Amino acid sequence: MQSIKEHFVLVLNSGSSSLKFAIYHYHTMHRQWSGVINGIGKASGTMKISDSHHHQLRTSTQHYRNIADAATAIILWMKENKKYCLISAIGYRLVQGGPEHRIPEIITEKVLVDLKALIFLAPNHLPEELSLIDTFLIAFPKIKHVACFDTNFHRDMPDQNKYYPLPIKYKEQGLMRYGFHGLSYEYIMQKLNQQHAFIDQKKIIIAHLGSGSSMAAVSAGIGVDTTMGISPMGGLVMATRCGDLDPGAILFMLKMNDITPEELDVELSEDAGIKAIAGTADMRDILKRRNSDKLAEDAFTLYCTQAKKFIAALAASLGGLDLLIFTGGIGENSFEIRERICADMDFMGLKIDHCLNLRSEKIISCQSSKVCIRVMETNEERMIAMHTKSILLACEEIDPKFSMHSGVETA
Amino acid sequence: MQSIKEHFVLVLNSGSSSLKFAIYHYHTMHRQWSGVINGIGKASGTMKISDSHHHQLRTSTQHYRNIADAATAIILWMKENKKYCLISAIGYRLVQGGPEHRIPEIITEKVLVDLKALIFLAPNHLPEELSLIDTFLIAFPKIKHVACFDTNFHRDMPDQNKYYPLPIKYKEQGLMRYGFHGLSYEYIMQKLNQQHAFIDQKKIIIAHLGSGSSMAAVSAGIGVDTTMGISPMGGLVMATRCGDLDPGAILFMLKMNDITPEELDVELSEDAGIKAIAGTADMRDILKRRNSDKLAEDAFTLYCTQAKKFIAALAASLGGLDLLIFTGGIGENSFEIRERICADMDFMGLKIDHCLNLRSEKIISCQSSKVCIRVMETNEERMIAMHTKSILLACEEIDPKFSMHSGVETA
Repeated sequence: MQSIKEHFVLVLNSGSSSLKFAIYHYHTMHRQWSGVINGIGKASGTMKISDSHHHQLRTSTQHYRNIADAATAIILWMKENKKYCLISAIGYRLVQGGPEHRIPEIITEKVLVDLKALIFLAPNHLPEELSLIDTFLIAFPKIKHVACFDTNFHRDMPDQNKYYPLPIKYKEQGLMRYGFHGLSYEYIMQKLNQQHAFIDQKKIIIAHLGSGSSMAAVSAGIGVDTTMGISPMGGLVMATRCGDLDPGAILFMLKMNDITPEELDVELSEDAGIKAIAGTADMRDILKRRNSDKLAEDAFTLYCTQAKKFIAALAASLGGLDLLIFTGGIGENSFEIRERICADMDFMGLKIDHCLNLRSEKIISCQSSKVCIRVMETNEERMIAMHTKSILLACEEIDPKFSMHSGVETA
Repeated sequence: MQSIKEHFVLVLNSGSSSLKFAIYHYHTMHRQWSGVINGIGKASGTMKISDSHHHQLRTSTQHYRNIADAATAIILWMKENKKYCLISAIGYRLVQGGPEHRIPEIITEKVLVDLKALIFLAPNHLPEELSLIDTFLIAFPKIKHVACFDTNFHRDMPDQNKYYPLPIKYKEQGLMRYGFHGLSYEYIMQKLNQQHAFIDQKKIIIAHLGSGSSMAAVSAGIGVDTTMGISPMGGLVMATRCGDLDPGAILFMLKMNDITPEELDVELSEDAGIKAIAGTADMRDILKRRNSDKLAEDAFTLYCTQAKKFIAALAASLGGLDLLIFTGGIGENSFEIRERICADMDFMGLKIDHCLNLRSEKIISCQSSKVCIRVMETNEERMIAMHTKSILLACEEIDPKFSMHSGVETA
């Protein structure tokens, strides 16, 4: 049996063509190793692994046909580098679990059956996520595997934000507003709770801005509204996704072109958004080009205008705003985007401080701003690790004979 | 030749199952007669006609198969009642004229050809509108017929509000944000201009709330943003229309059901919105029932929540708000809806006065409200009459030999 200090939680977070992983020390929740495989399904993929001091342990290039290939490569690295036998549990990010699967839970046969039946809800994400779980279940059959759902944070939205004004038969089929990026929102709320005594009394908007972008409105600590709906395509315009549309626009596209809903899905997910306007989906590229390239400037303007509008709309949903948080790749790093989003928003009490924002300080609002504006780093992997640990602790509570250590794999 | 005082402008405004008409004195723009035919296409339709003192001149019940039937009934009434020979010009409301036809214009052969080619842009409205024009062109071949487009008011929106973040091929097919209810917005802006000296310096939102609902954001007198897009189905939830959606929701409906885009169009236009939630599309009914019926209350809450969110979003688009105007059937008449929409909006300077609102006064905001809130009656028919008159005056200016009186029909 391993000594306590040597137990770890593995976290897996798969994207459309990437797989991130991180290994956390079970007791301290300190991240010991982390890595990412990019370019899955492309001619050439890369794997990068670092230790907790950000020292690169590995950089390699290889062809990964699919997510299972990438998963196998991680398992192989773990075996070769003696991490394999340390893992006490694995936590997964899952984009969707339908109305029934929201709270983090142990992956059982039944959960897998349920999730397979829900692929229609997230056809662009769930199949890869399930394939990832399958691969790791085979490699680690004895330990606990925990599913953490991106929709959990939004589970208590009031009815007017949860349901679409559509014929009831669609609701019965599972069509409702789920919301996503929930692990990011949970992480931010947990951080805020640690830092502030009365955070539950505040009206908060968290703007998770990255290649996928969404916002959540939080009141009394609960997610009461969000920008994404049934799919991660809704709400704000994004790098390659279009955001909310007039339904007439989609019907127009279908009627005027010989295209199936499946093909349109790919177009709206991969070829729309910023990319459709500026020719690139990379916001850094757009920021570099925007002074000399009208299309890049147009894409920048559209992105920021929509973000402004959704912040205001969510504030209306909350009935006011105390705290606006920028997070995610763009939210944490682009002072230009934060500045443009907050410009001319003093009508609702938002005043950004140019110098604080330029330096990406923790608080970037003016002293006279009614709304406090903050920049916070998010960490979805860490949130998954914490959920996974909580599940193991709950198992110990329910069944005193259960020991998370007993299931640890031995190589 | 008629004497000047006897010349009139006929205005025609067709809805999905109704046809409104009004006859305005050309010089005074005073409404002399007006009427409405309801229930077109239904088993039993009604025709009501009043004079300028609101005296009912006619109430009859009859089966109108289609809009041409209704048009013929109006022509017949005009002939029987000696109004026929008074008409110097006819103005029509047209929902859509594509990117090229925005400003009011004389209906020529070319305009008709263009409009017929644009039916795909407004398949639920344009065919009836063109059929109406055809019928009146035959009955009144010698006078000017003027098309007034609902999209005109929004023609100068900035690019970020005009175009969708979708692959360029769709824009080339005509897919863009046109906006509607423009004649209502033009009328309100004209009224405001008459009443206030510096209205062009104000940031204004006009909320046209009726069975079709939309909002326009006005800055420097120009419509800079609006809630509807390519179709009158977008933006706010409405009586029977769903409003903006996550595109994933529409793809879900199509993939999960054996339904064509055309069938879905009908469902999203006629069976969605408030009706899908509460079982009735009639807001008066919902207001009556909402205290005892949860579904009616849900529908009320959804409608008001979305209106709040769009007001805030448009204010963000404007960078502030000076004046909010409620108009349209619901906006002008429902104090409950206005009150709920404005509740908890003081974060953006909106404070409604309960008593002023209850009495539907012209100004319903508190004295301490930063934003002035007003209730104004709209009049799309009058706006069409004014446009039609302007066109005739312009004709006289361009061609001094042209006389609007020369074309007047003689019975």
